[in-house]
Amino acid sequence: MAVRGNNSVMNFLNEVAEDYPAAISLAAGRPGNTLFDEIDAESLSRWLATFCGAAPLSSLLQYGRTAGLIHELIACQIANDDGVPARADRIVVTAGCQEALALCLPELCPEASDVLLVRNPCYIGITGAAAGASVALQPLDGNIPGLDAQIESAIAQLAASERRARAIYLVPDFDNPTGEVISLEQRHAILAVCARHHIVVLEDNPYGMFRYEGTPIPPMAALDDTGCVIYFSTYSKTIAPTVRVGAATLPEHLFGDRGASVALYKAIVERKSFVTVNTSQLCQAMVGGLLIERHSSLRSWLSPTLEIYRRNRDVMLMQLAESFPVGGMPVHWNQPEGGFFLCVDVPMRFDGDAVTECATRDGVIVLPMSFFAFDASQDHRIRLAFSAVEPDRIRAGVHGLSRFVARHVGANARRERSLAF
Amino acid sequence: MAVRGNNSVMNFLNEVAEDYPAAISLAAGRPGNTLFDEIDAESLSRWLATFCGAAPLSSLLQYGRTAGLIHELIACQIANDDGVPARADRIVVTAGCQEALALCLPELCPEASDVLLVRNPCYIGITGAAAGASVALQPLDGNIPGLDAQIESAIAQLAASERRARAIYLVPDFDNPTGEVISLEQRHAILAVCARHHIVVLEDNPYGMFRYEGTPIPPMAALDDTGCVIYFSTYSKTIAPTVRVGAATLPEHLFGDRGASVALYKAIVERKSFVTVNTSQLCQAMVGGLLIERHSSLRSWLSPTLEIYRRNRDVMLMQLAESFPVGGMPVHWNQPEGGFFLCVDVPMRFDGDAVTECATRDGVIVLPMSFFAFDASQDHRIRLAFSAVEPDRIRAGVHGLSRFVARHVGANARRERSLAF
Repeated sequence: MAVRGNNSVMNFLNEVAEDYPAAISLAAGRPGNTLFDEIDAESLSRWLATFCGAAPLSSLLQYGRTAGLIHELIACQIANDDGVPARADRIVVTAGCQEALALCLPELCPEASDVLLVRNPCYIGITGAAAGASVALQPLDGNIPGLDAQIESAIAQLAASERRARAIYLVPDFDNPTGEVISLEQRHAILAVCARHHIVVLEDNPYGMFRYEGTPIPPMAALDDTGCVIYFSTYSKTIAPTVRVGAATLPEHLFGDRGASVALYKAIVERKSFVTVNTSQLCQAMVGGLLIERHSSLRSWLSPTLEIYRRNRDVMLMQLAESFPVGGMPVHWNQPEGGFFLCVDVPMRFDGDAVTECATRDGVIVLPMSFFAFDASQDHRIRLAFSAVEPDRIRAGVHGLSRFVARHVGANARRERSLAF
Repeated sequence: MAVRGNNSVMNFLNEVAEDYPAAISLAAGRPGNTLFDEIDAESLSRWLATFCGAAPLSSLLQYGRTAGLIHELIACQIANDDGVPARADRIVVTAGCQEALALCLPELCPEASDVLLVRNPCYIGITGAAAGASVALQPLDGNIPGLDAQIESAIAQLAASERRARAIYLVPDFDNPTGEVISLEQRHAILAVCARHHIVVLEDNPYGMFRYEGTPIPPMAALDDTGCVIYFSTYSKTIAPTVRVGAATLPEHLFGDRGASVALYKAIVERKSFVTVNTSQLCQAMVGGLLIERHSSLRSWLSPTLEIYRRNRDVMLMQLAESFPVGGMPVHWNQPEGGFFLCVDVPMRFDGDAVTECATRDGVIVLPMSFFAFDASQDHRIRLAFSAVEPDRIRAGVHGLSRFVARHVGANARRERSLAF
């Protein structure tokens, strides 16, 4: 089952952005440039020096360990910042977290009857990776209350055609594209059903450290006592995308089986050796130097960025409230306590043509939720990203969106009136 | 068809190297550390500054163009150094050349009946990438004279089972593992047969710039007038493996079809977006800065390294001649005019056990050619790498090998004698 918006979503968006360079983009889910305020040639050199210590730089320049160089530092950072009890000897350092996902899928779903469960809507990086590895997807039925029940239902449905759910992809904290958080109760319930059916949970956590208020919920990997979670982490959002350093952390025992976990780890490492050989040791060392400087926690490093993202989110929420006042146009949105995105329900079908019209006439680029969806359920929703946009542009962008909506609601109303007469 | 030595060859070798740290390794096909003599924190910073020019470093830190940032510089360098007429808009910059191979194979061989032709023995990076993408391999029959005739024969053989050769992987200059060079005449003949049958030539050229004497032969991509060659290049051997920057360069017209080439390029780029998103822009910028400094040619940059590798090769050849004098043990080797390797025929089966014995008792680690082979034809050969080994250690290593051979030849002779009586 393929996402309806196909895999060229990003190309489409890039083209729209190129064609309408003056338009404000609320589409790109990337870090704000303020994240880079303390990164310059000097700091990069310093991190390298810190990491190397007494060793010469040349020791970083050769080919290196396939599973990576900074696995111990990553284990500490994940433990400190996310509360995940990571073992260094179960960490594969990858060329960005996307590679980690791309390496795991074919190992977990080697047979044609093996299926990856996903939510609907779903991050296009995982649908693309699954397509690349010819891994079949089964979206959960969002109409069934409770993710655990949705998983049970999908298992039963697959069994009818002799297929098996082998893994489920989840972004429990501030999901991309919805911004939603899975509750603690639901996390436990999902873990229980996955343990029972030997379904591996692929927990992708790029946004967990970006909580602006409320009580943090432990990652599923921290709650996992049966060994069913592979934890995916990245430094693209916390340091810079350019480092291309991410990691997959396997459980010590996979469903209670130590040997199975070691075998999976080795298979993933071997697969990596035939894709990227090893992750750039120069990039790893820069990340490693920063982790050493910060005592294996990025909390303090990130706090200025969090302030800015929180402000951006607040500006977006305030502008939404101003542009779409209660009792006016039927537009609704969620209010995530963190992350990069929120989602907005609009009173019209919002497709690729709408993106183009909105960019051309209203000067704002937004992302239709249908691009992430497997059916028509998301056709009236859009994703707005606030992480990398200045407040003035957020206000102007949301205002542009309100013009678009008003024009279409007006047109609909006129059409309805003309039908009535 | 899988290589007999399976895909864990490198793990096996790494384990041997760990278990016998005192043993001299003639197994690793990596650059010598002298390549890194002019790389330090200062030069890395300078290259970054050169590449950025007036632009701030922060412009490199974000996500970037999937197909890469330095494609124009790479096009110039390939044209200058290799004589390949590369178009920047057909270059995909990848996280090392291995990624480029891994991205191309599933695009060229999407069907179960599609086959990749390879030589026997064959570089394990391509057999591993093919296994990872579930692409079937067909080794050429080395007993047939002429690679073009071998290809014709393979095509006929595949046709009998309704399969089709879609691509062939070749390292025409100083092949890994054999060190052999494909003649100009054979290059033309291969291009003709591949053009006729629409077989894409995957020309991997990591060693072409490492010619120590003799007349260079143009890469197949420079001779290709029908658009059947995809050219693979890497900076792992010319700058440093740690940069993890390689590239695939597609022909302007694929078998005369411009649209087909553009479509293949786009498919490869899209696939990359779901594996590594984009190649580290920091790493690309360091490579780019060096290319700018050197006016898009690495010839002068490499000349000190070439001197050292030439010396190493000469030392290895001299020591082989000394350790295995004419009329003594029946040991033979080739004398490549460049590259990192040579191959040696030994008068005994040389397998994994022999590697361990040779490492333990004779203090040298060598690579059995059978690890790269699809049949028993390579069982009496080994690969020796000279690129990264100091002359004294080359001498001691080859001497160790001669002890191993002498012991086994002696044992064979004793066994024969005892059989005779």
